[in-house]
Amino acid sequence: MTDPTAINSAVVAVGDELLFGMTVDGNGSWLSKKLTEMGAPVSARWVIGDDPTAIKRTVLTALGKSDLVIVCGGLGPTSDDRTRPAVADLFGLKLVIDQGLADKLHGRFSSAGHGTLPTNNLAQAEVPEGSIVVPNYEGTAPGLIIEEGKKSVVLLPGVPHEMRLMFDSTVTDYINQRFQLYLNPILHRTFNTSGIPESLLAEKIGEHVADFPSDVSLAFLPGLQGVSVRLTTAVSSGEGIANLDFCENLIGPHLNPYCYSVGEKSLIEAVADRLLIDKKSFAVSESCTGGFISKLITDHPGSSRYFKGAIVAYDPATKSDILGIERSLIEKHGIVSETIASAMAEKTADIMNTDFAIGLTGVAGPEGGSLACPVGTVCYAVADGGRVVSFRKRFMGDRTSIRERATQAALFSLFQILTKNTGLR
Amino acid sequence: MTDPTAINSAVVAVGDELLFGMTVDGNGSWLSKKLTEMGAPVSARWVIGDDPTAIKRTVLTALGKSDLVIVCGGLGPTSDDRTRPAVADLFGLKLVIDQGLADKLHGRFSSAGHGTLPTNNLAQAEVPEGSIVVPNYEGTAPGLIIEEGKKSVVLLPGVPHEMRLMFDSTVTDYINQRFQLYLNPILHRTFNTSGIPESLLAEKIGEHVADFPSDVSLAFLPGLQGVSVRLTTAVSSGEGIANLDFCENLIGPHLNPYCYSVGEKSLIEAVADRLLIDKKSFAVSESCTGGFISKLITDHPGSSRYFKGAIVAYDPATKSDILGIERSLIEKHGIVSETIASAMAEKTADIMNTDFAIGLTGVAGPEGGSLACPVGTVCYAVADGGRVVSFRKRFMGDRTSIRERATQAALFSLFQILTKNTGLR
Repeated sequence: MTDPTAINSAVVAVGDELLFGMTVDGNGSWLSKKLTEMGAPVSARWVIGDDPTAIKRTVLTALGKSDLVIVCGGLGPTSDDRTRPAVADLFGLKLVIDQGLADKLHGRFSSAGHGTLPTNNLAQAEVPEGSIVVPNYEGTAPGLIIEEGKKSVVLLPGVPHEMRLMFDSTVTDYINQRFQLYLNPILHRTFNTSGIPESLLAEKIGEHVADFPSDVSLAFLPGLQGVSVRLTTAVSSGEGIANLDFCENLIGPHLNPYCYSVGEKSLIEAVADRLLIDKKSFAVSESCTGGFISKLITDHPGSSRYFKGAIVAYDPATKSDILGIERSLIEKHGIVSETIASAMAEKTADIMNTDFAIGLTGVAGPEGGSLACPVGTVCYAVADGGRVVSFRKRFMGDRTSIRERATQAALFSLFQILTKNTGLR
Repeated sequence: MTDPTAINSAVVAVGDELLFGMTVDGNGSWLSKKLTEMGAPVSARWVIGDDPTAIKRTVLTALGKSDLVIVCGGLGPTSDDRTRPAVADLFGLKLVIDQGLADKLHGRFSSAGHGTLPTNNLAQAEVPEGSIVVPNYEGTAPGLIIEEGKKSVVLLPGVPHEMRLMFDSTVTDYINQRFQLYLNPILHRTFNTSGIPESLLAEKIGEHVADFPSDVSLAFLPGLQGVSVRLTTAVSSGEGIANLDFCENLIGPHLNPYCYSVGEKSLIEAVADRLLIDKKSFAVSESCTGGFISKLITDHPGSSRYFKGAIVAYDPATKSDILGIERSLIEKHGIVSETIASAMAEKTADIMNTDFAIGLTGVAGPEGGSLACPVGTVCYAVADGGRVVSFRKRFMGDRTSIRERATQAALFSLFQILTKNTGLR
């Protein structure tokens, strides 16, 4: 299925701080994903320092193998930002004043009350002659595009949010126009599931893969948030979409009970959407997750519209003192039990005056496990008006994994109750 | 200060998932930091796919410029793991069975009750002839070192925790021995501060920099957790340490009131250490941080020894209903006020029966701000027995930054009270 006329791209990340290991090259990954999806897959990435010789040599090497080279970083106004003059020099281009950029600089300077712009500050408005300026809406360093025959070099700043906005708002359109005939865009459809292990999911779906159109491939992407099932096709437009629809019809019935979203939406966002639509509220009592559930919910702006609060009952006494759970009940059933999780959920809904509540108690480890209740044991419950459903699970992994899996499991139970298990689209 | 005999290194990360942008190259950054500190600074990094031709070409290029090349990924037993045969082929080395590895495979196979090892499974014990095996204590794929003249190529698996353990336990010693005379190790001393902006810190310390020995450089590393001040010298052993001591004596008095640790220890770890030594307990009431403080505390195993729990009073009603704060007090002073933060802290210490408690209330945004109380306004208080101290601050940035800065500020106040501002070492 490889098209010999298809293009490929390369990414060069520039910055001493990357080579010192002080900063992770998140820009390289982000660009790789975008370029792959657009149909200009990345054949190699480089990370180099703020060194003009290295910049020139690497851009030249990258251009030898790729039609599109994105260089990221080293575009700022300070002396250790070497990308612009190095690339201009590589192509033998003079640096000239771009009048649009100069006007903006003058404007910014005088509106800040600094008077007239000193001449040497105009260096920031210099661009390699004949290059295309990519506007930077969130910072001072503009991006630049230099065309060399049928190939293009795109220079972008290294500040992630500036770079991303510039790529999405300008560079994407540029690439689509210039390389239109040579792009091989990829279509994805991703089903995000929870509450079912990869092996069981594979078993349920496996028999249908033989009936897939040959262009559609299937991947399982397991993570702490659950398993995502991804369909991919390189057949663009209508036919590809129809093929994905066909495959979704085959595997959908098996996925539905476990699927909380299709695409990018996280479980907590899916829960939030449901609560907003139904105008319902909820609250949480958590012990071993220690605020993880509450923090995850309140990461989202606007969560106060459905989230009332949480009680982190990290100490057993808190469960009786604040939640009002009888000590005798704890002694009889044990602190990690479905009974106590249910009581936590019910008391919390009551105290916080919410429609729904989650109660969760468990052993996140590495200490504190026992034969009857080993590390990873978590009991959780969801109170729904008068009813309460509870679960006892054992999660694998280290403390962080157990806390994350438990958080996810409890939220998925709430999601299932909210959607009455009807699946989602 | 550059030594012409000093070595430099290169890092090659191998994996299609890296080029697709599905995985961030955290290994490259981690290795860069380690190699820089060891005195074998990284001159370039590559990210390439699971492609034998690309692997061979890139390792050859890297070896042309660097004395030490670390290749990471593509060492597993499956067919898309191409690094081992590609590198063997590059150096014209046969793959031969390593008896130690073969014995281990046989042992693992029979102890799992699978009987005798099938011959084709022995491929996992094949190594390039003459290479050095790096044991993998946490996985199946061993690392390999191939020496070519005075240069070395080190192959490590891509699984981060396996790679890191192998590097720390074996590869570090190997590099130190082989390149002993050519390493230029760097010594750092990092002072982690909170509660003071970078500019003010620079002002306080600035005048002393002129008195620093010429080998010691100073860097300010601002982050959401506060500003770290880092001293660095490339003069190894005794003299370098003495020079760092000298500089610390100069700047220490200015840093002390803001410094919670020297080295790697986080603020929450510093707080935890203090609470454990003093055998004290604490609890939290938080609103706009929504569980962030509690989650951060309970990320650490053993936190139940000093942390009793939290109340996330995300809804104003929760503050009165659960914490028992009079509604009239809220109406009089406003929900975001030092009075309410103080009441939250006092009531929490009381309800949770702890020695200390934090109360925090604020506006994390992006909605909910007002003229009197704009987004970023946070009031927090620490209750200490009968006393309570409170603060009103305005934090900048987006929702995540505001929540993180507020969490850090409140914990730093607790730290200052715990240490009575005496500084730390």
